[in-house]
Amino acid sequence: MANSPSGDSVTDRIVRVLETFTPSRSVQTAAEVGRRAGLPASTAHRIVGDLVEAGLLDRDGEGRISVGLRLWELATRSSHVLRVRQAALPAMERVQARVREHTQLAILEQDEALFLERLSDPRAGANITRIAGRLPLHASSSGLVLLAFAEPAVQERVLGGPLRRVSASTPTDPAAVRRKLAEVRRLGHAIAPGYIEEVSTGVAVPVRDDAGRAAAALSVVLPRDAVPALALEELHRAALEVERALRSPL
Amino acid sequence: MANSPSGDSVTDRIVRVLETFTPSRSVQTAAEVGRRAGLPASTAHRIVGDLVEAGLLDRDGEGRISVGLRLWELATRSSHVLRVRQAALPAMERVQARVREHTQLAILEQDEALFLERLSDPRAGANITRIAGRLPLHASSSGLVLLAFAEPAVQERVLGGPLRRVSASTPTDPAAVRRKLAEVRRLGHAIAPGYIEEVSTGVAVPVRDDAGRAAAALSVVLPRDAVPALALEELHRAALEVERALRSPL
Repeated sequence: MANSPSGDSVTDRIVRVLETFTPSRSVQTAAEVGRRAGLPASTAHRIVGDLVEAGLLDRDGEGRISVGLRLWELATRSSHVLRVRQAALPAMERVQARVREHTQLAILEQDEALFLERLSDPRAGANITRIAGRLPLHASSSGLVLLAFAEPAVQERVLGGPLRRVSASTPTDPAAVRRKLAEVRRLGHAIAPGYIEEVSTGVAVPVRDDAGRAAAALSVVLPRDAVPALALEELHRAALEVERALRSPL
Repeated sequence: MANSPSGDSVTDRIVRVLETFTPSRSVQTAAEVGRRAGLPASTAHRIVGDLVEAGLLDRDGEGRISVGLRLWELATRSSHVLRVRQAALPAMERVQARVREHTQLAILEQDEALFLERLSDPRAGANITRIAGRLPLHASSSGLVLLAFAEPAVQERVLGGPLRRVSASTPTDPAAVRRKLAEVRRLGHAIAPGYIEEVSTGVAVPVRDDAGRAAAALSVVLPRDAVPALALEELHRAALEVERALRSPL
């Protein structure tokens, strides 16, 4: 009943519709949604109509479609994400008040670093990270920390796959990344000079769970030539606070 | 194709499934989801399975279901919510650093105050507000500000509907709420002593759009007998900052 002739479920098609919306493409016509989701126009119009009716998408007076508040509300109010983020936010604010650049929180999700939160000083330098955005594990300080303290199986999978070059400084040789991960485990933090953008250096520390795995990564993005000592000191202190907060009952 | 014999669309049923998850019920069995969504067990199992496959729900090793990160990611990365929240967060942090209680951001959504963000001091007092939670417009300082600077049609609809008592101090007489709204417009802020919880006072200011409507409300929750002068001064300054941030391009 819920399957189309091509065998994909209505759920699949709804996800494909939602996936056509991105930070740089937050408003579309129903026809654009259908084209980008690879759906026949009539199917796209019906699904968009249903989603608008349910409040998961919004339609403005000119027929333009955007992601609705109801979707955010449903996703946020009962989510694991919110618990990690709420546990981390007070410590992140203290880091941000001292370092005054960009302070970020990421978790490991489907072999990428998914950013849950970012605090930025209005005068801070470049930073391409977005909340709910993703970065490759081998190319970001947060990702290196998440990978260094992940299950060995995750490390092997990531090192065995393609290691995409994000900037000219991104390490893309598996042996070099492996050495970097050993360094991260030895130091307890990651420094990634220019790996994402040549003008910036990411520094990150793990928030560890009881098994010693990285439950999350706290990071700061600094101008490339900044001395990372203060940021590292603040991040290490913040990680201890977040670990304590995650161990205490809600 | 996408409709059940009872006429509700698959989209409706997906929304009903997602709506069974709440802050206090973030993990359920598929059978519980089906019962709470009012769906036959086989339908609930199929929809839950599709949503797990798409990553919108997670299933752990013991078959327990929770809301998935993917849903949050899809909802967050392209949402209007994120723009308002990002515009407001730096100003909220400054309020929080000075007042050290609870600092909150809310918008008007379907005749309720929907809370987008909350910063809380670890030592701050009671506060039942949750991120992605809602409060009645007439009963909260944020809601009163959103209502006082809303379209007149919204005010008439809310004043004409039931005005629920949340605490013994909540105003529930339409004439009393109308007088309160006039006071809020005259003063430019709302003070709601004990309206939500007897032990707390909410104070809120509007973030106005170019038409003078409240695009959002910034609020602080104080202990009931605290003097609100500092909070109000900080909130008024923060509202100006957020208004400026919302007017500037992303």
